[in-house]
Amino acid sequence: MTAVKDSVHDYISLDPVAAELVDTPEFQRLRHIKQLSTVRLVYPSASHTRFEHSLGVYHLASQAVSHLDIDGDRAAHVRAAALLHDIGHGPYGHQTEDLIRRRTGRDHDEIAHLLDGTRLGEILESHGLSPSRVAAIVAGEGPVGQLVSGELDVDRMDYLVRDAHHTGVPYGTIDHGRLVRELRYRDDKLVLSEGNLQTAESLLLARALMNGTVYRHHVSRIAGAMLERASERLLEDGVSIDEFVRMADHDLLVALGEHVPELGRRIESRELYKRAVWAPLDAVPTDVVELGYESSRAVEREIADIVGVPPEVVIVDSPARPRIKESRSRIVVDGVVRRLEDASELVGALRATERTQWRLGVYAPEAIRDDVAAAAVDVLDVPIRVTTPP
Amino acid sequence: MTAVKDSVHDYISLDPVAAELVDTPEFQRLRHIKQLSTVRLVYPSASHTRFEHSLGVYHLASQAVSHLDIDGDRAAHVRAAALLHDIGHGPYGHQTEDLIRRRTGRDHDEIAHLLDGTRLGEILESHGLSPSRVAAIVAGEGPVGQLVSGELDVDRMDYLVRDAHHTGVPYGTIDHGRLVRELRYRDDKLVLSEGNLQTAESLLLARALMNGTVYRHHVSRIAGAMLERASERLLEDGVSIDEFVRMADHDLLVALGEHVPELGRRIESRELYKRAVWAPLDAVPTDVVELGYESSRAVEREIADIVGVPPEVVIVDSPARPRIKESRSRIVVDGVVRRLEDASELVGALRATERTQWRLGVYAPEAIRDDVAAAAVDVLDVPIRVTTPP
Amino acid sequence: MTAVKDSVHDYISLDPVAAELVDTPEFQRLRHIKQLSTVRLVYPSASHTRFEHSLGVYHLASQAVSHLDIDGDRAAHVRAAALLHDIGHGPYGHQTEDLIRRRTGRDHDEIAHLLDGTRLGEILESHGLSPSRVAAIVAGEGPVGQLVSGELDVDRMDYLVRDAHHTGVPYGTIDHGRLVRELRYRDDKLVLSEGNLQTAESLLLARALMNGTVYRHHVSRIAGAMLERASERLLEDGVSIDEFVRMADHDLLVALGEHVPELGRRIESRELYKRAVWAPLDAVPTDVVELGYESSRAVEREIADIVGVPPEVVIVDSPARPRIKESRSRIVVDGVVRRLEDASELVGALRATERTQWRLGVYAPEAIRDDVAAAAVDVLDVPIRVTTPP
Amino acid sequence: MTAVKDSVHDYISLDPVAAELVDTPEFQRLRHIKQLSTVRLVYPSASHTRFEHSLGVYHLASQAVSHLDIDGDRAAHVRAAALLHDIGHGPYGHQTEDLIRRRTGRDHDEIAHLLDGTRLGEILESHGLSPSRVAAIVAGEGPVGQLVSGELDVDRMDYLVRDAHHTGVPYGTIDHGRLVRELRYRDDKLVLSEGNLQTAESLLLARALMNGTVYRHHVSRIAGAMLERASERLLEDGVSIDEFVRMADHDLLVALGEHVPELGRRIESRELYKRAVWAPLDAVPTDVVELGYESSRAVEREIADIVGVPPEVVIVDSPARPRIKESRSRIVVDGVVRRLEDASELVGALRATERTQWRLGVYAPEAIRDDVAAAAVDVLDVPIRVTTPP
Repeated sequence: MTAVKDSVHDYISLDPVAAELVDTPEFQRLRHIKQLSTVRLVYPSASHTRFEHSLGVYHLASQAVSHLDIDGDRAAHVRAAALLHDIGHGPYGHQTEDLIRRRTGRDHDEIAHLLDGTRLGEILESHGLSPSRVAAIVAGEGPVGQLVSGELDVDRMDYLVRDAHHTGVPYGTIDHGRLVRELRYRDDKLVLSEGNLQTAESLLLARALMNGTVYRHHVSRIAGAMLERASERLLEDGVSIDEFVRMADHDLLVALGEHVPELGRRIESRELYKRAVWAPLDAVPTDVVELGYESSRAVEREIADIVGVPPEVVIVDSPARPRIKESRSRIVVDGVVRRLEDASELVGALRATERTQWRLGVYAPEAIRDDVAAAAVDVLDVPIRVTTPP
Repeated sequence: MTAVKDSVHDYISLDPVAAELVDTPEFQRLRHIKQLSTVRLVYPSASHTRFEHSLGVYHLASQAVSHLDIDGDRAAHVRAAALLHDIGHGPYGHQTEDLIRRRTGRDHDEIAHLLDGTRLGEILESHGLSPSRVAAIVAGEGPVGQLVSGELDVDRMDYLVRDAHHTGVPYGTIDHGRLVRELRYRDDKLVLSEGNLQTAESLLLARALMNGTVYRHHVSRIAGAMLERASERLLEDGVSIDEFVRMADHDLLVALGEHVPELGRRIESRELYKRAVWAPLDAVPTDVVELGYESSRAVEREIADIVGVPPEVVIVDSPARPRIKESRSRIVVDGVVRRLEDASELVGALRATERTQWRLGVYAPEAIRDDVAAAAVDVLDVPIRVTTPP
Repeated sequence: MTAVKDSVHDYISLDPVAAELVDTPEFQRLRHIKQLSTVRLVYPSASHTRFEHSLGVYHLASQAVSHLDIDGDRAAHVRAAALLHDIGHGPYGHQTEDLIRRRTGRDHDEIAHLLDGTRLGEILESHGLSPSRVAAIVAGEGPVGQLVSGELDVDRMDYLVRDAHHTGVPYGTIDHGRLVRELRYRDDKLVLSEGNLQTAESLLLARALMNGTVYRHHVSRIAGAMLERASERLLEDGVSIDEFVRMADHDLLVALGEHVPELGRRIESRELYKRAVWAPLDAVPTDVVELGYESSRAVEREIADIVGVPPEVVIVDSPARPRIKESRSRIVVDGVVRRLEDASELVGALRATERTQWRLGVYAPEAIRDDVAAAAVDVLDVPIRVTTPP
Repeated sequence: MTAVKDSVHDYISLDPVAAELVDTPEFQRLRHIKQLSTVRLVYPSASHTRFEHSLGVYHLASQAVSHLDIDGDRAAHVRAAALLHDIGHGPYGHQTEDLIRRRTGRDHDEIAHLLDGTRLGEILESHGLSPSRVAAIVAGEGPVGQLVSGELDVDRMDYLVRDAHHTGVPYGTIDHGRLVRELRYRDDKLVLSEGNLQTAESLLLARALMNGTVYRHHVSRIAGAMLERASERLLEDGVSIDEFVRMADHDLLVALGEHVPELGRRIESRELYKRAVWAPLDAVPTDVVELGYESSRAVEREIADIVGVPPEVVIVDSPARPRIKESRSRIVVDGVVRRLEDASELVGALRATERTQWRLGVYAPEAIRDDVAAAAVDVLDVPIRVTTPP
């Protein structure tokens, strides 16, 4: 059996289907999409890719189906889905997901069109697997779909430990061995067995700590917002969305350098915009918290007008209110299946913590930061409040 | 400079005072006191000792004083105190601490008498250090005392990562590098600098998860309770408390084999009592929750009488209500020093979680467990409720 | 299935036979025998035991038989043998092995008598396993015996990585995942498959580097020699060899304190003898290199006489000439099975290196070291030559 | 002080000069040059970059100068040189080094022109540092130059442990803590202090094992040879060498896709050529072993002619004879400074091993591999001999 050496799980054995799928250009493309996109501007060692992450998810899925006594055809579909779960990502992964959704209506976990009449689909069918069933599992459908995309999926188990290994931030170092071993099905729902309330909480806590320290670090958010804005302008400049979604990180970086040179250069050389406003939830009017894409752009233009600069040098970044998907995971407590949020005191507190960590950001080049801050305070009716050194 | 290779911190450089202190029988004794006493009956790799832990605390204290720009005489006292902070432990560390306190009135961090007129004291004085000042720091007194014994002390930073390394349970893997770097003094109080709310929370969470999974694992609690009871009988059998406090783990294990052979054999061979009762806080009458030492013994006798067995085969284990010392740690938020419990939503939830994890235990040999359970339910007015497989 | 958390291999699943064997006093005794005996006087974190090592060897054996498609009855015998392979060790493991062999004629891997009519034997038989077949595998007999005791056995794979983890010395960190995966049988001989010459060499090199840095560190050798001499005197003082072989580390340490107090105290407090002579192979007459047990004792007496001290304060330590068992391991090169020593240029060089590292030691208390050195030079006709700071 | 979190060395503190240098586009470019170029086609997790490696070398250099009591101006120059030592690399690092040398006459460690009149040079001068002195240290000149580029330099200490961490192959996990602590100067030569023969050997062995398993893995060699050939054609297609040397990995990958689409696509999607010939040193005529660049190209054309294919689909890859630079490192043995090759039996054996591992490769697309093999055997007078599965 083919085996791949991985820095996190050591040897990963590939079944024949997986070995063939890995050798396609569609899967090899994942070598060129970094797992944490702009996070590596903060944590330089975090240059790992969706390629090895996908192998890791495949590995944990193999272990999980084995522990759950799922085998044969059903297990084969789960393994294939685990391997392919990220092939729907555009360049820079999550960082361009909203943009792609706005233009195509598709999320990254909708991959049916990528398996229909393609080499990947052919390989699946040649091994007796159904492409549409694989796509359904990737979308989280059915009992086994929860293994790949759900509150207790192996996707998050892999990325937490992998991101910890590569950033050096230990918070993501969960006990994935225990999590995988303690999975059970109850009435077709995936649950953690008795005695694992704390195991479930640890998964939630790891995510929450990694969110604050890694995934939502303000430097990564600024770079990500710049990248998204630059990508919008790339599409306005004539690059088609079909071409865009097939790009890998390096294609996008080079394309930005050609079509949006100033932003492209800044992203490549980490000459990032600075925070003009960085305001917590309780200081921001509700309508600003819920600014959609179009309104954010309008506000940017308004601020830019006041300052007298082109609109593209002002970025308003109002992230979605935080959700904690893991809080809906199921555990067995005293013999009864319960939602974690009902069984754990921590979930409510973590929700409050996530709200506390939420920040509205307004970013601009350093030279005009103060002017942008002044204008933004007027337009958005928010305080500046950047307490940590910018 | 002498250096010691450590599995957690790599090389630990010893200053001349430390090098001399390490070479005394009093300090070498710590090689023979395991850090986690009975925990290794659950996690077999956890056989690390207070010797290497003490070196680790010394190492982190050296780094902390350097980052805090404390030097000279003051730094030397902190380093010596960090090194010696555990020499007051009896055999099996925390497991015999209550017993020793009842007999001597002393806690393990009262070490003045061990430095007064002893070789350790001589060494300190020969280097111009004050034994009493070292003892005061070990007791947590004064601004620098907080570094060695306080809510943000380097003691807990070392034991969390060390216990994680040796048990294999990852929850204790905190970012001690960051914690040490972000320590500051504000009005003589040790605080974490701005932007470290989550860093402080991570310390608290690591402790909470390690508590439930490792430190208070029921198997370790049963063995610990058996050990404490056996030690009481050892003292009743003629071993003096002065002799007892100087024992190391191996001395106690052999002495138990001689004086209390049945319990000694059971502890050594891990033939442990089983849980007859394992009841949560809300199911236990308040007076039972607060059973002191004497009352617990009386209840044991009562239960034993009903069952018709000698009192020593019944153990009632009603632990102190949980406290979370770390929740009082101080952090700077928006320029103001705040207690973590006031700044973090998590503290309240963790307190609730700790209460949820609290269990009253009644333990007995497997053969009489059911009878003891029935009697205990009567005597203590509690349900049996052992939900996880015993 | 029962699972044990291990700091090296994460979760180790125990089959029903193993779960029962582990729960015997004979196996639990291994919790009290440290893997590296006196090495922890140099590397303080190295307090791991033969208990977790035995679980680790069991774990790797389980993986190996699975990769080799050995199953059923045969696999069950291999797994049981792997688990029990160290139960024949006396206190302090290898450190008392020579002494026990001189008195009983038995090596630590002869365990038939420990399975014959004992609880361990009963458990094996109750699961349809043959105690004598298990004992034969432990002794390295037959094709599968090589898996447990041979040039490519899983015993050394486990101890190298485990000792690296616990000492902090990285040299033992081999790629055990690859070694286990690449095992094959050719004509009933265990070999490494094509393309693994370097994998085989890496095993050899890890051993050689760990030998010099860890296993044969002079401080550990001195303490080990003191322990062996003290144990001899313990037996002369009335402790029977039957009692001795059943001791665990703590029993021996306490017994030495009672019967041989001066040496016992020194070992416990690490007040070790110092090197009076430390001479390389080319400086030592052949008859001294090959000094047997009796002659070494005679020489010690002679030296002590000259100095005018009792014989027990002089220790002559002339270790066996080094052998490198791993150099006989088999690999497939260009389709042909070859011995590593025939296929690798490194083996000869390592043999030379091992000879270079060999040292004759004469040890004595610091106060009389110089006198002992002078006398030893006369008696043994060797130079002193202690070049590294003693 | 600015600190960067690193997955290998934890926090790396940057002095003010370093903090400024890091923020230049020239240094940020290193984020886009992978440390191991084509190796990640074999070990997918190996996507770390020269950016974090450079920070790591800076970190070890800081430690080394501190242990060596080098301070002030001299230490500042060493630290700056360590940080900048890799800025002279072209895209894909070592993989394009020969090509760049042929066109510019410059090696990657000649960086004087990159510091002369540039922003990097300005920063150095503004802190009172001499750009030419920094460049000289990078080139290995003078006593401190050996720290950055020499047999015992911190460059190799960092890359060995970093490559091990990211590939998952443990062989590179050296004891860099010890190596850095044991550096000394003797007559202006950098040496390892007494008692470190084995420490020096371990460095050599780590390199040798990583060479065979990682750095010279045949898949990486094939991809590297394809990349070099494709880069040659890029330059022939009009891209200037000045433009080329400033490229980062992503620039080159996109440029290949445009200018050399077939090879570019193959490299990006890992559709690599296969080995038609893979012959050891003793089977290859001396003149073929020493084929230079021009002759290799001529031979390729000759083979291609015979097969009837265009010359670019045949690659002859005859690597330089192996040298082991580390074998010239100096150690103190019995008080005398010696070259490792004179003091260690292993060096000679490793040289022989390196010769044994040498392979002549001839690569071609799978469809024509057999024809190319037949033609190559004629032209080069070598056997095919591909023993491991291609």
